[in-house]
Amino acid sequence: MSSNLKRIGLQTVELKSYPKIISTYSVVGPKEGDGPLKNYFDKILCDDCNGQESFEKAESSMMITAIEEVIRKSNLEERQIDYLFGGDLLNQLTSTNFVAREFKIPFFGLYGACSTMAESLSLASMIVDGDFAKYAIATTSSHFSTAERQFRFPLEYGSQRKIQSQWTVTGSGAMLLGKTGNFPYVTHVTTGIVKDYGIKDADNMGAAMAPAAVDTLYKHFKDTGRTAKDYDVIATGDLGTIGRTLTEDLMLEYGYDINGHYIDCGEKIFDNERQKTNSGGSGCGCSAVVSCGYLYKELLRKNFKRVLLISTGALMSPTSSLQGESIPGIAHAVAIEFK
Amino acid sequence: MSSNLKRIGLQTVELKSYPKIISTYSVVGPKEGDGPLKNYFDKILCDDCNGQESFEKAESSMMITAIEEVIRKSNLEERQIDYLFGGDLLNQLTSTNFVAREFKIPFFGLYGACSTMAESLSLASMIVDGDFAKYAIATTSSHFSTAERQFRFPLEYGSQRKIQSQWTVTGSGAMLLGKTGNFPYVTHVTTGIVKDYGIKDADNMGAAMAPAAVDTLYKHFKDTGRTAKDYDVIATGDLGTIGRTLTEDLMLEYGYDINGHYIDCGEKIFDNERQKTNSGGSGCGCSAVVSCGYLYKELLRKNFKRVLLISTGALMSPTSSLQGESIPGIAHAVAIEFK
Repeated sequence: MSSNLKRIGLQTVELKSYPKIISTYSVVGPKEGDGPLKNYFDKILCDDCNGQESFEKAESSMMITAIEEVIRKSNLEERQIDYLFGGDLLNQLTSTNFVAREFKIPFFGLYGACSTMAESLSLASMIVDGDFAKYAIATTSSHFSTAERQFRFPLEYGSQRKIQSQWTVTGSGAMLLGKTGNFPYVTHVTTGIVKDYGIKDADNMGAAMAPAAVDTLYKHFKDTGRTAKDYDVIATGDLGTIGRTLTEDLMLEYGYDINGHYIDCGEKIFDNERQKTNSGGSGCGCSAVVSCGYLYKELLRKNFKRVLLISTGALMSPTSSLQGESIPGIAHAVAIEFK
Repeated sequence: MSSNLKRIGLQTVELKSYPKIISTYSVVGPKEGDGPLKNYFDKILCDDCNGQESFEKAESSMMITAIEEVIRKSNLEERQIDYLFGGDLLNQLTSTNFVAREFKIPFFGLYGACSTMAESLSLASMIVDGDFAKYAIATTSSHFSTAERQFRFPLEYGSQRKIQSQWTVTGSGAMLLGKTGNFPYVTHVTTGIVKDYGIKDADNMGAAMAPAAVDTLYKHFKDTGRTAKDYDVIATGDLGTIGRTLTEDLMLEYGYDINGHYIDCGEKIFDNERQKTNSGGSGCGCSAVVSCGYLYKELLRKNFKRVLLISTGALMSPTSSLQGESIPGIAHAVAIEFK
């Protein structure tokens, strides 16, 4: 029996059937659509309210579009989708729950802060690989204005941003997974454990999350026997410039040089200098749209043959921060190939 | 390939290996420990602060106990557990994330409001059945005092409770699943879709969630060909008295008489009259401790041979309620046998 176990090493599973990512869809706000990756997104909103009466509804409307369009692009119908895995940053998953209401798809709500895209992709991949589903969707969203008022201050306060601050991405991405077809496919899932090195500054989430990213990447290397050279791109999301630098340094201490193979979704999505986004983007929409846009499309074009997506989450809450707690972090990794 | 699919009907999978629930552990507060199910719980706190400096930390401490003890009762060690699936009601899963920090177990955070126990058990069962894990833990918690101040009012306001109100259970339950052994086992998982019949009264969550419970139970019956007679107990959690009555009536309209086979965890855990809990218990700790305590122990004693746990969640947030939104509901069902 144990011989069937797909588990390798400490935290990784190697999928048997290599679930296929049949299609992806990404929708972003105007600021993201003005950034360096603008040509990779399927839809750029001209107004981040998207015609809705609240920012929360605008965030939901982006995710609804992402799900509808990823089903349409896959030439499938809603009733063929066996599971929807999704989440967002809002209390009680407000955005995603109100999205799920619009679909008749069995739904699992997830919360992993900005790690949620890799969390939903991990679970969707395993559920398809385990023959529980023929088709499953993984999706997340975030919105600058819903996140600011929930985690920081109402926008009207015009609070100043620290140099380490990250800018929550307005966007939603969805991936549709299936069992067959000639598409990029998921080979490995490395699930993270929670790491907490005692950082308490909620304006410096990159530093809080970097140890989790390093831990998961290190475990992935150990479990699979791979190194950075085996990947065209290792993409964390979202550590920003500070967290990305920390991650490179820490990985060197662990004996792995990832330089030249490593990017961070949060650093990649904005031109920090021109767009004044300080340390870069964040939010679980960030690694969603960068993976659904940039990574997936470069895989399709065969410019990348193998990528590792490591979405990272800072698991504090405003309550825990007020109570003086430090910020636990988590990171989940998913290896995607197309050869 | 499709012939291997474990999916039957619209929303159900039949597990191949029938993952075993090796052990469970439940810990509750003093009020729950004074209720009709008191003899089924593994641990009853004499103080709902549990020696901690905040209610949030008290909630986490219960879940830590539940996880530690369920591992110990299974004669396993922490390093043998492949995945931890868990969630709670707090913003950003504060309780669960700070619990996960204490363990070196790969962690998936879930949010399904009070449906989270069945959600975590569903995913843990599938992950074990799909050979991704040898051992996995499903856990949730809730705490009256953390939930009151987050969803309603600070306790100090002494707000009056409506007759339809439910009392959030202080408690945490954990189940440890494995591949082998002579233990109660999971046979079917029916995953819910989100239902919203337009109810806006956040004090009447039973009525908001009943349509979701009815939908999932109806789909489970259709998908499996079973009826209420096939179950010793069908246990929703947590609709309370009002939601339980609605569910019975609605099921009759669908042509299924569930009377005599049907209980609600929220109605069962308190003596509403004596304990002044109005419509009954709620919170994702409720169906957790009732299933880990009452249902599991009666299965072990062979008083029950087959039970269906249907945890139900009200997916509103304080923000969505203030914005005038109605309350979407979801329910997940897990069939457990021991013959």
